[in-house]
Amino acid sequence: MCRGDDVHCPEFHLHHRMFKEDLDIERRHFLKSSFVATGGAAALAAGGLSLVTPALAQASASKAPAQPTYHYLPANSDTVHWGYFSKTLKPQVELDSGDIVTIETLTHHAGDDLERMVEGDDGAESVYLWTKDKKGVERRGAGPTDPAVYKKGSGEGMGVHILTGPVYVRGAEPGDILEVRILDCKPRPSANPAYQGKSFGSNAAANWGFHYNDMLEGKKREVITIYEVDATGAKSWAEAVYSFPWVPQTDPYGVVHETIDYPGVPVDHSKTTRNTDVLKGVRLPIRPHFGTLGLAPAEADFVDTVPPSYTGGNVDNWRIGKGATMYYPVSVEGALLSVGDPHASQGDSELCGTAIECSLTGTFQLILHKKADLAGTPLEELDYPMLETKDEWLVHGFSYANYLAELGPEAQSAIYSNSSVDKALRDVFRKIRHFLMTTKGLTEDEAISLMSIGVDFGVTQVVDGNWGCHAIVKKDIFAGRA
Amino acid sequence: MCRGDDVHCPEFHLHHRMFKEDLDIERRHFLKSSFVATGGAAALAAGGLSLVTPALAQASASKAPAQPTYHYLPANSDTVHWGYFSKTLKPQVELDSGDIVTIETLTHHAGDDLERMVEGDDGAESVYLWTKDKKGVERRGAGPTDPAVYKKGSGEGMGVHILTGPVYVRGAEPGDILEVRILDCKPRPSANPAYQGKSFGSNAAANWGFHYNDMLEGKKREVITIYEVDATGAKSWAEAVYSFPWVPQTDPYGVVHETIDYPGVPVDHSKTTRNTDVLKGVRLPIRPHFGTLGLAPAEADFVDTVPPSYTGGNVDNWRIGKGATMYYPVSVEGALLSVGDPHASQGDSELCGTAIECSLTGTFQLILHKKADLAGTPLEELDYPMLETKDEWLVHGFSYANYLAELGPEAQSAIYSNSSVDKALRDVFRKIRHFLMTTKGLTEDEAISLMSIGVDFGVTQVVDGNWGCHAIVKKDIFAGRA
Repeated sequence: MCRGDDVHCPEFHLHHRMFKEDLDIERRHFLKSSFVATGGAAALAAGGLSLVTPALAQASASKAPAQPTYHYLPANSDTVHWGYFSKTLKPQVELDSGDIVTIETLTHHAGDDLERMVEGDDGAESVYLWTKDKKGVERRGAGPTDPAVYKKGSGEGMGVHILTGPVYVRGAEPGDILEVRILDCKPRPSANPAYQGKSFGSNAAANWGFHYNDMLEGKKREVITIYEVDATGAKSWAEAVYSFPWVPQTDPYGVVHETIDYPGVPVDHSKTTRNTDVLKGVRLPIRPHFGTLGLAPAEADFVDTVPPSYTGGNVDNWRIGKGATMYYPVSVEGALLSVGDPHASQGDSELCGTAIECSLTGTFQLILHKKADLAGTPLEELDYPMLETKDEWLVHGFSYANYLAELGPEAQSAIYSNSSVDKALRDVFRKIRHFLMTTKGLTEDEAISLMSIGVDFGVTQVVDGNWGCHAIVKKDIFAGRA
Repeated sequence: MCRGDDVHCPEFHLHHRMFKEDLDIERRHFLKSSFVATGGAAALAAGGLSLVTPALAQASASKAPAQPTYHYLPANSDTVHWGYFSKTLKPQVELDSGDIVTIETLTHHAGDDLERMVEGDDGAESVYLWTKDKKGVERRGAGPTDPAVYKKGSGEGMGVHILTGPVYVRGAEPGDILEVRILDCKPRPSANPAYQGKSFGSNAAANWGFHYNDMLEGKKREVITIYEVDATGAKSWAEAVYSFPWVPQTDPYGVVHETIDYPGVPVDHSKTTRNTDVLKGVRLPIRPHFGTLGLAPAEADFVDTVPPSYTGGNVDNWRIGKGATMYYPVSVEGALLSVGDPHASQGDSELCGTAIECSLTGTFQLILHKKADLAGTPLEELDYPMLETKDEWLVHGFSYANYLAELGPEAQSAIYSNSSVDKALRDVFRKIRHFLMTTKGLTEDEAISLMSIGVDFGVTQVVDGNWGCHAIVKKDIFAGRA
């Protein structure tokens, strides 16, 4: 069934009306919410501890429509791009600063259990469609698209995440900052009636994991564990359902995948051995968030989604969930925000290569802050992705702050042989110093003392080529400051 | 005034009686507490989520006296050793498993402000005593003690922490595990009447800091910031009082210290420039803890206190405070526990080289688990320092798990040129895998999936030669497990 977005559907008009009615309900819900009623951006900023000063909030609001418009972007083969960010992509939604958009996202690991994560789900089915003649989404990755060149598939899997978007923000230009508020974030229920009320995710202990060349038992192996995630909100944890070692899979085009080397290969479970005696009684706390959320960078036309960079992308910080706000430097006209790599849960480091990869739907408010209004505010000079939660600010460092610019023409492959936590810690040290000096007006000496006694440094991820560390500053440290 | 511990004091008998009376009050307090009344170790273990199984708790308790004895170890020039762990040291207290001991600790940075941190404090004065003829504690560090050889001072500052102890645990032998419960941990009030009700600490942004060769402004510099720490419990934060750049200091023996290169050099403030406009309004949350707590290792007679290792020591995790329990593998007869490097607050990474270095007094219960009783329990095979809090388990990794054994005869200097967060993350990955497999009975594949989605990896410190990472497992993950 179409969602009112397929004009070839015989019942298009009925579906479209239903879809619009659903939207109206969602829209009314948001417009009635206390968030909008109290003035939205300006009200939040007035709290005093947002990075957006009241003056900046006012300046930015004055350039936006008085009332936000609500948009809905479903995930299907027309609205997603797979494995790359690109400034060349046609926007799927065009909106004004202040607008609210609900975006469906699909995990790129749904092929690990099509029955639970794809079957009956029109959007997911359209994306995962793959027969010997046709793929719902042909290109997967920033690599070659010429069949004479690629070996694994179009795009060569150089970049793996299914991203929905991009969203074009009217008026956004390089030098501006895009504020992205995550108003909601919830698991996508299985559309298979056999699994009503449940969501599912996949964790792949994969060849790019930190553990892969350092295992105790037997030969190298990739192991996939399927987790059940409660979609009703009744349980706050996920539980393992079964696991299986990856065995060579032949994709519908006839390519054999000895390892997990191309995204979305449908796993043929007649060839796997399922183990249901896995992590019995272990309850993983749910932390739904978007592993990949960010803007198209200017440096290249097609950019592998795996390494995060200054415009965000695959930051893989589990704190990028409901209630969090991200700030990104705009690199191209329209900002071009895309989102995907949804996770039900992840630990700091994402050690084995993936999280619980589970489709989610997010609702975002996008607020554009123009370069001309940034002078003297905490967002001036921000050239890295910054995360703000209710209680904390988080700065992200990477092995290379902007690897596309720093590692030359071969940056997109070179980054994978230059991964380093030591370098990422060096980068985040410099950034948190910049943050404390710029945003909080500290001297370098004050910033350095403060970060040693009041800032916690953690390992964000060690599996995305451009490895990441983060620094956490608690806002209440500044509660006594004028 | 002596604390009843100086037989040469003219009022020794009066002081000794007062000291004993104080002890009795403390002792009664503990014996009356619900902790002891409910059976102590056994009761805690029965909670089911301690690393000590009920059977092990019972076996260990059966080897200990029925009632714990209370001991008090003040800090003075007789009871501390400065800058080294050593299996050759004479014990300051000898006790039985299950006993409780209150131990005073002194910061090795009190020389930065003698007026606030030493004056009027008999114990601290005896330790910091340094005239042209005499030092209260001559040796500071594991280095040379021959004046013909050393340049900076006896022990050469190869190791900097003032440690109180060691405490000898009767019956402890290599292969056993010592459980150290931190029952209390509180700041030592300034003994200077001008600063009644306050404690103070020093933060040195020092030459061994992660930032030192990477500064924006001007030339390399070391900057010390003095913090005020509320000693009454009325405030939960510390505030900066003043800062000063280090200027060359001539110690009482006439040695000039161009940088902070020897511990306890009394700072002559007639030569410094104090800046009181520092971190105005910034409130650092208090996290009192012991930076250095651990056992004497067997590998060498005198071991630099700076690099942490398998018997603990300078782990520098701010979670090693009140309510936490540490588990250490015993390396020498009697275990020989020492404690020092007290911190009022520190962030994960201790980036600039130090925390808020502030004298603290801790109360500990020590429980010995004999090797013969460990088989089949979570503590079997534990060969690294393990931290347990009410809600979490923490495993510590280092650049080298046991650098003394791994880096050969020159290990104590070689470790400083082999510092690496990448290596520490590798080590903690292997240890948390071991922990999950041994303690929780998971397969390797289960452990690897779990640690990617439910374990948080952080940077403990990058300033102690043997750099550290930790992995945090929340206990409630296992709440549903039989």
